[in-house]
Amino acid sequence: MKIYSSRKFDVEINNFTLPNGKTVEKPYVRHRGSVVIAPFLDNETIIMIRQYRPIIGKWLIEFPAGTIEEGEQLETTASRELEEEVGYKAGKLQKILSFYVSPGVMTEVMHLYLATKLEKTAQKLEEYEVIEPFEIKLNDAIRLVEDGKIEDGKTILSLLFISRKYRDLLFLLQ
Amino acid sequence: MKIYSSRKFDVEINNFTLPNGKTVEKPYVRHRGSVVIAPFLDNETIIMIRQYRPIIGKWLIEFPAGTIEEGEQLETTASRELEEEVGYKAGKLQKILSFYVSPGVMTEVMHLYLATKLEKTAQKLEEYEVIEPFEIKLNDAIRLVEDGKIEDGKTILSLLFISRKYRDLLFLLQ
Repeated sequence: MKIYSSRKFDVEINNFTLPNGKTVEKPYVRHRGSVVIAPFLDNETIIMIRQYRPIIGKWLIEFPAGTIEEGEQLETTASRELEEEVGYKAGKLQKILSFYVSPGVMTEVMHLYLATKLEKTAQKLEEYEVIEPFEIKLNDAIRLVEDGKIEDGKTILSLLFISRKYRDLLFLLQ
Repeated sequence: MKIYSSRKFDVEINNFTLPNGKTVEKPYVRHRGSVVIAPFLDNETIIMIRQYRPIIGKWLIEFPAGTIEEGEQLETTASRELEEEVGYKAGKLQKILSFYVSPGVMTEVMHLYLATKLEKTAQKLEEYEVIEPFEIKLNDAIRLVEDGKIEDGKTILSLLFISRKYRDLLFLLQ
């Protein structure tokens, strides 16, 4: 049963049958899913953003990301958000991981894309997005994670996952 | 303005002033915050859980975790969830990272704790929690992350962060 609907998420209450046979009624947040994009200018330089997040009243260091629009293909979302938020088109997009963001309360699944063969276009922000892109070496970004300077979960996860798989990445970037 | 309230989260709509002076009205999910716990039996053996997640209809491999109760101290939440979900008391709890789970739509901040000097007690599940603890080597868990077998964001992040800081961890475990 849908009890609230907004552009980015709905709230629903449904009955679920558990593996132990019991039934539980749970309220939860339905979300269409999202993408996060790690844009590589070369083997070691990435593009990140400083983004103002109104609901927590903070600037966060993040990778560009966004919600899948109704009926949109994943790769289209990745390509669209990359261009809107940082002003680049990707010649190559590769999905390297999918994960649930908060599976106790929200259905959102997020897909991590590597974006390479970048070509400069122009940022196209929505009226209420406050986003400043910047270039940084992957190793320097990892140091920010280790020092607790990056507070956005998807960005910490993405940086550490990519760094862990870096040898593969060098291969992927060919 | 609160438009929905449940045990784990509320939905609110508020006006926010942006750094560019504009005002935006946003619906969002208010969440009290949560903890995730990485329990170490020794320098290389951790305890994880298989948990059934009704709202996505899947079993996920996770670290124990849970929502902060009203007015509860963070460390109490960590200690309580560890005992309830895996049946261990921690002699030592250390917070090593805090991060936002989905800062575009939800206020939830999550705190990662290392739990060491473990002492066996008994699992105390709530009626509708379906959770099976198991022991695994940290390196084997990291391999599950690399192979895409772990789909829970907080768990991927926690495993990679701990593994990245492993030398420090060995020191912390003394």
